[in-house]
Amino acid sequence: MKLSTVRLSGNVRATTAARQDGDTLVLLPYADVGTLLAAGDDWPRLAAEDGERVPLDGASFAPVVPHPNKIVCLGLNYATHIKEMGRQTPAHPTLFAKFDGSLVGAHDEIHMPPVSDDLDWEVELGVVVGRPGRHIAREKALEHVAGYTVANDVTVRDWQHRTREFLSGKTFEATTPVGPALVTPEELPPGAAGLAVSCSVDGHTMQKSNTSDLLFDVADIIAYVSTIITLLPGDLILTGTPGGVGAGRDPKVFLRPGQELVTTVEGMGRLRNTVVKDRL
Amino acid sequence: MKLSTVRLSGNVRATTAARQDGDTLVLLPYADVGTLLAAGDDWPRLAAEDGERVPLDGASFAPVVPHPNKIVCLGLNYATHIKEMGRQTPAHPTLFAKFDGSLVGAHDEIHMPPVSDDLDWEVELGVVVGRPGRHIAREKALEHVAGYTVANDVTVRDWQHRTREFLSGKTFEATTPVGPALVTPEELPPGAAGLAVSCSVDGHTMQKSNTSDLLFDVADIIAYVSTIITLLPGDLILTGTPGGVGAGRDPKVFLRPGQELVTTVEGMGRLRNTVVKDRL
Repeated sequence: MKLSTVRLSGNVRATTAARQDGDTLVLLPYADVGTLLAAGDDWPRLAAEDGERVPLDGASFAPVVPHPNKIVCLGLNYATHIKEMGRQTPAHPTLFAKFDGSLVGAHDEIHMPPVSDDLDWEVELGVVVGRPGRHIAREKALEHVAGYTVANDVTVRDWQHRTREFLSGKTFEATTPVGPALVTPEELPPGAAGLAVSCSVDGHTMQKSNTSDLLFDVADIIAYVSTIITLLPGDLILTGTPGGVGAGRDPKVFLRPGQELVTTVEGMGRLRNTVVKDRL
Repeated sequence: MKLSTVRLSGNVRATTAARQDGDTLVLLPYADVGTLLAAGDDWPRLAAEDGERVPLDGASFAPVVPHPNKIVCLGLNYATHIKEMGRQTPAHPTLFAKFDGSLVGAHDEIHMPPVSDDLDWEVELGVVVGRPGRHIAREKALEHVAGYTVANDVTVRDWQHRTREFLSGKTFEATTPVGPALVTPEELPPGAAGLAVSCSVDGHTMQKSNTSDLLFDVADIIAYVSTIITLLPGDLILTGTPGGVGAGRDPKVFLRPGQELVTTVEGMGRLRNTVVKDRL
């Protein structure tokens, strides 16, 4: 099952949850996929119900979960990226947060802020929580996954490194595309392992890896985060990026206004976003 | 005006916004103070309306804003704390996040997690956003403040330093008391400057400082954060802690189960929280 949050025509604010059915979208009576997941453990049944149909072609995708209670991100979770950033292999997952104002839809513009030109790409496997839980055992962790999605943790690299804490460079407004769909686990390998991930800029491949190269896999991450705090339906976890970011190159390369960023995770569709420069 | 979020008797989940009026609380028709602030720019008028009255004495305080869209925290924002943690004076505010599951009310228990005994105190001035905004000029920043409150950024110190990122040690479930009230700006000096802050453990003063010692003051912080992302009504900003934390002592001292932590900011009341140890 593939679930999306789509914008209703004529109203950029109003969204609805929808299920992909061939070349149509079946509209569901929930404001977004997060609201659907919060409706209860029987959300898969609710998501399978019939409803008004609109063409998939031309749909305007909002972030697949526009307002997660939590966006938990992993840093340094692929060996290739750890090496290019000059770090040591960590003993524990490196966690940081984003706020939901940083999220954009699968085909939305990515906003380069007025204060920086160092906008960098980071393809990531996204995980959306279904069943709530705290102190979740690793062996039970995948039962708490509602599905998987594609994300690009687009980073304002100079602001990321202004201080020791990543947050400032990671949560700029309208920088992080996520979508186009939440793909439920039965359509994918367990834990979304073994899937190709990639990212290209204007058709040039910049990152190319596989989710099997994650240091901490999806079950590890869910168990670890739930040691700290209760996971809730709709929570979004970004699992970290592989090597190939612009800041890891010599010379460094960053995104420029007008460039198209395409981000893929095998079996989950793609993000296609154009960079625009915000002016004050 | 002093506004609180209180729990209704007989239902620990249900809360209501309330205004303090002498020794009574006037209940307001909003689920919490955050919802009231989100009702519009005329929230001060809505907050001043009459309603059912209950005694202030014995009220059960929820976190003053239980579900902020954002909790933005400052690290390293008092010279005394920077010195005790062995850091350099930063050129930019050090920002990190918490999730709302970490918040507790003014008299609630603070939960020491099963995985650590290194629970440490951090008295902080809290700021609650009223008017939304992005790219807010420093000179206009205080117009975006709904009010101020008391917070203790209780930290799981060993988890804070497991990786480079603070988040893991800062967002454990039920660790961060905030309240008892949002105090509106007209009751306080501009920017809540010049107010004594303190923190004691079982009656022994551990931290004692003044908000005038903040490196980045409230207006600086609002302007800076709004460069990154749109501030929304109810957003909670914790402005950093002064020297005197347990990890900065020789030998280090941490909270023990059963101890009482009292946290004050002049003119805003006090937090009084007992530490309990969670067991798996």
